[in-house]
Amino acid sequence: VSWCARAAILGVGLIGGSLGLALKARGIAAQVVGWGRDEGKLRHALSAGVIDAIELDPGEAVRGADLVIFATPVGSFLQLAKSVRASLAPGALVLDVGSVKGALAASLHGAMPPGVNYVPCHPIAGGESSGCAEARADLFEGVLAIVTPVEGTEGTDPGALARAMEFWELLGATVRRMSPEEHDRIYALVSHFPHLAAYAIVNAVGEIDPGAIGYAGRGFMDTTRVALSSPDLWQEISLMNRENLVRCLEAFERSIGEIKHYLSTGDPEGLARVLARARALRETIGH
Amino acid sequence: VSWCARAAILGVGLIGGSLGLALKARGIAAQVVGWGRDEGKLRHALSAGVIDAIELDPGEAVRGADLVIFATPVGSFLQLAKSVRASLAPGALVLDVGSVKGALAASLHGAMPPGVNYVPCHPIAGGESSGCAEARADLFEGVLAIVTPVEGTEGTDPGALARAMEFWELLGATVRRMSPEEHDRIYALVSHFPHLAAYAIVNAVGEIDPGAIGYAGRGFMDTTRVALSSPDLWQEISLMNRENLVRCLEAFERSIGEIKHYLSTGDPEGLARVLARARALRETIGH
Repeated sequence: VSWCARAAILGVGLIGGSLGLALKARGIAAQVVGWGRDEGKLRHALSAGVIDAIELDPGEAVRGADLVIFATPVGSFLQLAKSVRASLAPGALVLDVGSVKGALAASLHGAMPPGVNYVPCHPIAGGESSGCAEARADLFEGVLAIVTPVEGTEGTDPGALARAMEFWELLGATVRRMSPEEHDRIYALVSHFPHLAAYAIVNAVGEIDPGAIGYAGRGFMDTTRVALSSPDLWQEISLMNRENLVRCLEAFERSIGEIKHYLSTGDPEGLARVLARARALRETIGH
Repeated sequence: VSWCARAAILGVGLIGGSLGLALKARGIAAQVVGWGRDEGKLRHALSAGVIDAIELDPGEAVRGADLVIFATPVGSFLQLAKSVRASLAPGALVLDVGSVKGALAASLHGAMPPGVNYVPCHPIAGGESSGCAEARADLFEGVLAIVTPVEGTEGTDPGALARAMEFWELLGATVRRMSPEEHDRIYALVSHFPHLAAYAIVNAVGEIDPGAIGYAGRGFMDTTRVALSSPDLWQEISLMNRENLVRCLEAFERSIGEIKHYLSTGDPEGLARVLARARALRETIGH
């Protein structure tokens, strides 16, 4: 008997596609049905064996599913929840994989019909790539999966939370639990802000001399790789977490100002001290 | 007959060590002698087969060498040039691998004794790692090697320049020629500035919540990897190229300000446009 009889994956891109492959490879779901806006891409995912069946209507996709995963861009979650609400099966577990939690988690929680439990999740996997063609069954092995239950007496059901945590563990992830607000504060810092910084680095080069980019080496490639990420997706994520992000960018302006100060005053010890402070912190997470 | 009879490598770290391995693997030099400040590290490089012989005095290392390569941190080049000047063999070709050219190239050019030719070089190889243990014979294959001849009638000898270009081609690099000033302007943009930006990203995280770094995923690792680079080396490089760098950081502040503006005003189209502009430029150099 599978952990889940019918899993519906809404959005079969890099994350959704990798979930499909992993659910099938590990025998977690007996059947995986996929929904997405682009029928051509869905048919490609089906023929690639990423999903077992496709539905062109999200309501049909979730009908009878005991596990439903929202894997579209975060900006579409609320509308999607509304459009599948009437079709969700009683007892279904609904998860998402969005990079922002906070108010969105609370809204999705409130949008579920009675008897359906939603658990906000964020697997720290994926990256600047997108699309089902990049999907991998082992994408979640060894990564962090953050679960952010909505707190309070009317909050996330403890049984559903336990089941969501078990789900990510079955995929090989290490589960961490925190509040939606704590998630957004932390991931502003270590994900959303660095994305915006990478885009800003490229735009600064573009302002001064776009042609210089042809001389870039590996360091530049690494530092700006996430600027290959989808502008639409990252615009959505950034605006949903804008208060934390503005705070990060203000701290960033101070840390750039500190470096500029030592450059302008020509202070080697001061500059080396600032760089060494960054390196010491960066070293704590390895190469 | 080898391209060079005796090559002296001053500074046997990642770049110097890789040069030693490549010169030997490709039969470019009949003998490779290494000098460095740390006798223990030199002996380790010798026993690892990175170099054929060691010298504890830089003057002794360059004596009789027809090829001399400065591969120590750029801040030490001028002092090193003074200390080997009297021992350089007439006809010797002197190269460096420093990340800054500009005034330093002119100074080194002026520090050479009669009959010795110096060609300023910068192979775009290496990275945040350092030390001979990371050295690889193929480090220069397929990378750019920039040569920046000092211009004018008293400038770099054309024959020496041709020989330096041939040297990098023998190592598998693609050679590009530009002026020392053009080099510093371009590499401020695509190397020095992104390094400072990466250090500043980590310091911004450190200011707000150093503990958050433990939640980082691959995007953060990529974006800040070069902040693992040596603070002493990058302090030297940054101060030697400070005028270009201050200009880059000012453009960077504008590009961050642009993003902050669209976050603050909550403008999805404006923000997506800024991110898309960055992605379009970043895409021109691939993944």
